[in-house]
Amino acid sequence: MTVHTGRHFLQIPGPTNVPDRVLRAMDMPTLDHRGPEFAELGFAVLAAMQRVFRTKQPVIIFPSSGTGAWEAAMVNVFAPGDKVLMCETGQFAVLWRGIADKFKLDVDFIPGDWRHGADLAEIEQRLAADKQHAIKAVCVVHNETSTGCVTPPLEVRKILDRTKHPALLMVDTISGLGSMEYEHDAWGIDVSVAGSQKGLMLPPGLGFNAVSEKALAAAKANPGMRSYWDWQEVINFNKLGTFPYTPATNLLYGLREAVKMLEEEGLETVWTRHKCHSAATRAAVKVWGLETQCADPAAHSPALTGVRVPEGHDADAFRKVVLENFDMSLGTGLNKVKGKVFRIGHIGHFNDLMLMGTLAGVEMGLDLAKIPHRSGGVLAAMDVLKGRDVVPMAKAQVA
Amino acid sequence: MTVHTGRHFLQIPGPTNVPDRVLRAMDMPTLDHRGPEFAELGFAVLAAMQRVFRTKQPVIIFPSSGTGAWEAAMVNVFAPGDKVLMCETGQFAVLWRGIADKFKLDVDFIPGDWRHGADLAEIEQRLAADKQHAIKAVCVVHNETSTGCVTPPLEVRKILDRTKHPALLMVDTISGLGSMEYEHDAWGIDVSVAGSQKGLMLPPGLGFNAVSEKALAAAKANPGMRSYWDWQEVINFNKLGTFPYTPATNLLYGLREAVKMLEEEGLETVWTRHKCHSAATRAAVKVWGLETQCADPAAHSPALTGVRVPEGHDADAFRKVVLENFDMSLGTGLNKVKGKVFRIGHIGHFNDLMLMGTLAGVEMGLDLAKIPHRSGGVLAAMDVLKGRDVVPMAKAQVA
Amino acid sequence: MTVHTGRHFLQIPGPTNVPDRVLRAMDMPTLDHRGPEFAELGFAVLAAMQRVFRTKQPVIIFPSSGTGAWEAAMVNVFAPGDKVLMCETGQFAVLWRGIADKFKLDVDFIPGDWRHGADLAEIEQRLAADKQHAIKAVCVVHNETSTGCVTPPLEVRKILDRTKHPALLMVDTISGLGSMEYEHDAWGIDVSVAGSQKGLMLPPGLGFNAVSEKALAAAKANPGMRSYWDWQEVINFNKLGTFPYTPATNLLYGLREAVKMLEEEGLETVWTRHKCHSAATRAAVKVWGLETQCADPAAHSPALTGVRVPEGHDADAFRKVVLENFDMSLGTGLNKVKGKVFRIGHIGHFNDLMLMGTLAGVEMGLDLAKIPHRSGGVLAAMDVLKGRDVVPMAKAQVA
Amino acid sequence: MTVHTGRHFLQIPGPTNVPDRVLRAMDMPTLDHRGPEFAELGFAVLAAMQRVFRTKQPVIIFPSSGTGAWEAAMVNVFAPGDKVLMCETGQFAVLWRGIADKFKLDVDFIPGDWRHGADLAEIEQRLAADKQHAIKAVCVVHNETSTGCVTPPLEVRKILDRTKHPALLMVDTISGLGSMEYEHDAWGIDVSVAGSQKGLMLPPGLGFNAVSEKALAAAKANPGMRSYWDWQEVINFNKLGTFPYTPATNLLYGLREAVKMLEEEGLETVWTRHKCHSAATRAAVKVWGLETQCADPAAHSPALTGVRVPEGHDADAFRKVVLENFDMSLGTGLNKVKGKVFRIGHIGHFNDLMLMGTLAGVEMGLDLAKIPHRSGGVLAAMDVLKGRDVVPMAKAQVA
Repeated sequence: MTVHTGRHFLQIPGPTNVPDRVLRAMDMPTLDHRGPEFAELGFAVLAAMQRVFRTKQPVIIFPSSGTGAWEAAMVNVFAPGDKVLMCETGQFAVLWRGIADKFKLDVDFIPGDWRHGADLAEIEQRLAADKQHAIKAVCVVHNETSTGCVTPPLEVRKILDRTKHPALLMVDTISGLGSMEYEHDAWGIDVSVAGSQKGLMLPPGLGFNAVSEKALAAAKANPGMRSYWDWQEVINFNKLGTFPYTPATNLLYGLREAVKMLEEEGLETVWTRHKCHSAATRAAVKVWGLETQCADPAAHSPALTGVRVPEGHDADAFRKVVLENFDMSLGTGLNKVKGKVFRIGHIGHFNDLMLMGTLAGVEMGLDLAKIPHRSGGVLAAMDVLKGRDVVPMAKAQVA
Repeated sequence: MTVHTGRHFLQIPGPTNVPDRVLRAMDMPTLDHRGPEFAELGFAVLAAMQRVFRTKQPVIIFPSSGTGAWEAAMVNVFAPGDKVLMCETGQFAVLWRGIADKFKLDVDFIPGDWRHGADLAEIEQRLAADKQHAIKAVCVVHNETSTGCVTPPLEVRKILDRTKHPALLMVDTISGLGSMEYEHDAWGIDVSVAGSQKGLMLPPGLGFNAVSEKALAAAKANPGMRSYWDWQEVINFNKLGTFPYTPATNLLYGLREAVKMLEEEGLETVWTRHKCHSAATRAAVKVWGLETQCADPAAHSPALTGVRVPEGHDADAFRKVVLENFDMSLGTGLNKVKGKVFRIGHIGHFNDLMLMGTLAGVEMGLDLAKIPHRSGGVLAAMDVLKGRDVVPMAKAQVA
Repeated sequence: MTVHTGRHFLQIPGPTNVPDRVLRAMDMPTLDHRGPEFAELGFAVLAAMQRVFRTKQPVIIFPSSGTGAWEAAMVNVFAPGDKVLMCETGQFAVLWRGIADKFKLDVDFIPGDWRHGADLAEIEQRLAADKQHAIKAVCVVHNETSTGCVTPPLEVRKILDRTKHPALLMVDTISGLGSMEYEHDAWGIDVSVAGSQKGLMLPPGLGFNAVSEKALAAAKANPGMRSYWDWQEVINFNKLGTFPYTPATNLLYGLREAVKMLEEEGLETVWTRHKCHSAATRAAVKVWGLETQCADPAAHSPALTGVRVPEGHDADAFRKVVLENFDMSLGTGLNKVKGKVFRIGHIGHFNDLMLMGTLAGVEMGLDLAKIPHRSGGVLAAMDVLKGRDVVPMAKAQVA
Repeated sequence: MTVHTGRHFLQIPGPTNVPDRVLRAMDMPTLDHRGPEFAELGFAVLAAMQRVFRTKQPVIIFPSSGTGAWEAAMVNVFAPGDKVLMCETGQFAVLWRGIADKFKLDVDFIPGDWRHGADLAEIEQRLAADKQHAIKAVCVVHNETSTGCVTPPLEVRKILDRTKHPALLMVDTISGLGSMEYEHDAWGIDVSVAGSQKGLMLPPGLGFNAVSEKALAAAKANPGMRSYWDWQEVINFNKLGTFPYTPATNLLYGLREAVKMLEEEGLETVWTRHKCHSAATRAAVKVWGLETQCADPAAHSPALTGVRVPEGHDADAFRKVVLENFDMSLGTGLNKVKGKVFRIGHIGHFNDLMLMGTLAGVEMGLDLAKIPHRSGGVLAAMDVLKGRDVVPMAKAQVA
């Protein structure tokens, strides 16, 4: 066991720092999942998640990782051979595609360079070309956690509308929900996929699907096999505030408290805060003379920043220096950007001074790891934080 | 919110009472699931679960309910059309069979009366008759949580051996593991299914499979589709102490502590304790003049006791009286024994005086609910507890 | 370290079982004791304690044990040589008297047999005889924790009024407050002394004085030396919600939550609950054929029951049997009743089934320790609990 | 209730940030303070505190604030009229002197400017002049928390030895212990005074005295009145691992864990870490162009840094800006430096990145509060942290 003094800086882009209030809410005796008190909890978290997803339609909560929620999205609406349009925005898009392959879907995979969001023009072209409507769904990753690039789901919805294509719109917002604007209903999303351990500030262990009427109808018509992930059965039990199998009760305690915290701060304030911290981080990266992995100024993620190390340097060696010297965990580069990128998470339960500690750790680490850079990134970040129009630390009077 | 004073008596047969030490172990910051400290945790819990299952073979830990672990057991080794032999021991056997149906297995379901363990003679007969070895697996529920009847897995193993049948032996020990003797390797089990919220004294949220070499080979040969539940991928990642997707870190913290507690007490002592509490409970039931749901004296569960209410009385009305008057949750009768049976959980983090509080609550509840019975069950239970040969409360000196 | 399974039964008459909600409230980061958020906390707990003491007058909170609060009561109003009237109701009265001796007060100590409350007739006689009003204060222990005998403070007030004696009325309600009726203002108490670890359901670490205007005036006039315990300085700081020295912040978090719990249940319901549990306990003692230490039927404590073991038996040997066999802590006999008495605490965060576990443990322990007794005490207790008019488990709907 | 996101930066020089491990250790059921398990705890914490104080002599633990421990030090060895030599190093020296006044000691108070440690030359002179040995004790504050100036106790010991003066040496090391070198025995201290809420990383609520044989002998001879604070009675009980009155059990749980953490890191490493953070802080202050309150380069505190704001500016207005904008609590200027000084705590459970967040918050706050300063202090601090010879974050392998 390594001895740490002070708090570890957990600055991977998820799992994120869990607030004490949420940990304490979970630190309570489990209760009878078939009793009346449980139903209160069940109804409360289901309603809370509807508010977070901004939907009046069902939200399904699984005891699972986010990966499980991806699989759930797939097996409910698709049978083997169904065609889906997916976009290579990064590692998580690749992984999701892998699930589709395992369930023998016919994946049309739009290539990408991992430095941009999904290629919207190409999506439009392929949908327009699909006169037979063979494509059953378009799947995009809202916030690609491996790169820090955002794909705007609303733009994909507009493409579907423009091309009058009936395909479902499925969105992985695992690291988007609770950290950036998301509107399940208003944006016409059919299936939203999320997890507990990012913007929702919980430990990992819960997966979420928000589903439209259209997606539910597709599921009803789908002959594909499923049991654990079956939406309809969960929805049936949810009517009584319960679940078809023993739910992860203590994580639900935490979820109730976490959404309470998000709403005390205000979802819009939460989004603004993430944007502000992202801008401050990029200001530092610019001074350091490094490149962000995201090459599209319009696509920078509010939740994390991927940073490229210069040729000839190893991002993971750098991360190790930072971990050993400053007790901070940064995100590793995944798959094809392994060793080339490190990721700074500024998502979830976070504030200005935690960001400054984070950026100072990165700047000192660059120096200790002898990665060429200019110093003073932290000063640039401070300028952003000071000059902000909207105070990122929300304040509210709660009764 | 209902106001409670004192501790709620959570005497359903799971989720069980979570020890303070386990809750506190979980009440800690999440960590980087790809960092070096996580690997220590990963290796620790995997080794711990091997010791609990009594196996040298792989144990797979899923972020899921126990139901998910059932599904995992199925989808790894079976493809649609595969034949399995299952036994109707109660509601959980029925539910497991339902999963088999959903995955289009060909289920040979041996009927039962919900008052005994699996019909071993019938199992032997059907296996012996299956000269073509069409049956791919025999699936039994070790401890049928809906009835309190035990099926001895070792006897099923002996039948397979006697009939020289190559079928896999799959055992649901969700409420058996950690509360009664279990020997994955020595009993020749191929797939064991377990969950966190019973004898393991954790909140719900983790599912387990322990798998034999033979089961792994069957999985390798199985063309059936699966992704989240795929054993092999988990096993590959586990070699590095990690998981293919974000694990439920805080539940793993709890698991490490819970197994530590089981081992401080000693697994054998844990089993003896459960047997003693079960015997004391039956002594009370006998004095009350009520019947246990389990009609086979050799099959009584150490983990819970199902109690039948006399004709013309409603077990759920009784449970409500107990909950409202004494703040104790008892298990409901499920499915075909709805209203006829209530269940007393004496499993997990439990001791003599908690049992006495529990039985006193039942006895007082019988009176308040006007269910015909003789008083003095609690005295009979006390006689059992006092007269025991082995002190159920383990004591050990730990450095 | 001894390994325990299940929850320890902490049935000493304090420190009492601390509710999870209170422990969790304390399990939070400390804050700036001079900042604005602290003041909110400070005002909240001061107001809460006024409601619990039933007073509009100042309550002083010390980081101390209850013993410290006794000392505070003494040093604020007395100088060496001052005469006080005290009553030997048991060990805690003796200890309090010891403090008076150390501060060189002139103690008039009314003897007692440790089986009754204070001798009210004798108090009246001595006050009436004190024509010079040399007696500066009458000090009584409301609930004598060493014996389980109650002295009614209101009766002492009436005596003072009848005799027109100006002495202060000082009451140790350390184990009374929060478990039995107490009215600082309505009963005309001048100084009430309390601690956190009894009816207030907190860990030890806070001492309390509630003080009347008259007591404050006496303090102002008192030339006796004091600093830490000085009421006036604390009161001055309390006007701003702060304290003259660093307060025990986390215990104050717990205090806020504990009073919230008491008020959710309702103070009157709390008192009724304690009376009911006390009656049930005595019903058991009667069946066992044992004697309560309290020999006055009108003076039985709602908070604890002292039980005498027959001649030739050792109460501490019995307690050891109970601890080792049933993991329950009972209170020891103190001082002159050492070995002759054990004490059952039924105070604080407690309910019917915890009481039944407690009484079953005592009854089984009597048997194992071979103390002559009749069995069936638990049944008698159950009859009391069932037959009660007022349901002791309060229920309330909170928004 | 103000809504905070992310962790509050509690950078007052105590109470300090409490580690999660310590909070969780306290978040456990209270136990019987007269039972065998308590004795284990009692012995453990007494031995632990001897190791922290570096003494083989008794350590007394009070349920009290640090102020209480001061009073204890006084009332045990002094009677009214006794002469003591004290030094005005700052507010805490003034407060300590106030206690001496209240107990009618004859205080010889060496004046100071609040910007240096105690005037050692003056101490020597007064002791040398005291041929009659009227001075019973020299009292110094090791680390003056109101100014950030250190007085070296060993130098005072040398003066006592040089002047062959028999006076006791009493040291307030409330904010020194656990953050800077301290050697009760080797430095010949007679009474050390400490509290839980500083370098010991606990919430407030425990006071400590470490006492020499000579101090104990003085106490024995002292006719002064005391009860709660009486060393000898505590020491007598401590022989059995218990206390004369109900101890603050849950704080003792925390103390056991906190000392474990200090020893895992290593006390020497802890001291080095504090020095390094102090140096980094001063490097920042220097760049900002501000003055430290401590004017003696040899006396800078490793635990905190007092910073003076320029004439015409209000340190408390600045602190308010920092609190409201960056959710950080800084220490206020006390008494005669009110409004002129703010204090940065870098004591206790702390690390490099927490320091950088802290300093960035100060630098941004200076800007927002329009206090004249040069930017870039944070860069200077980073240079110190990077260039250090000894890695301040201790690492150790624990089984």
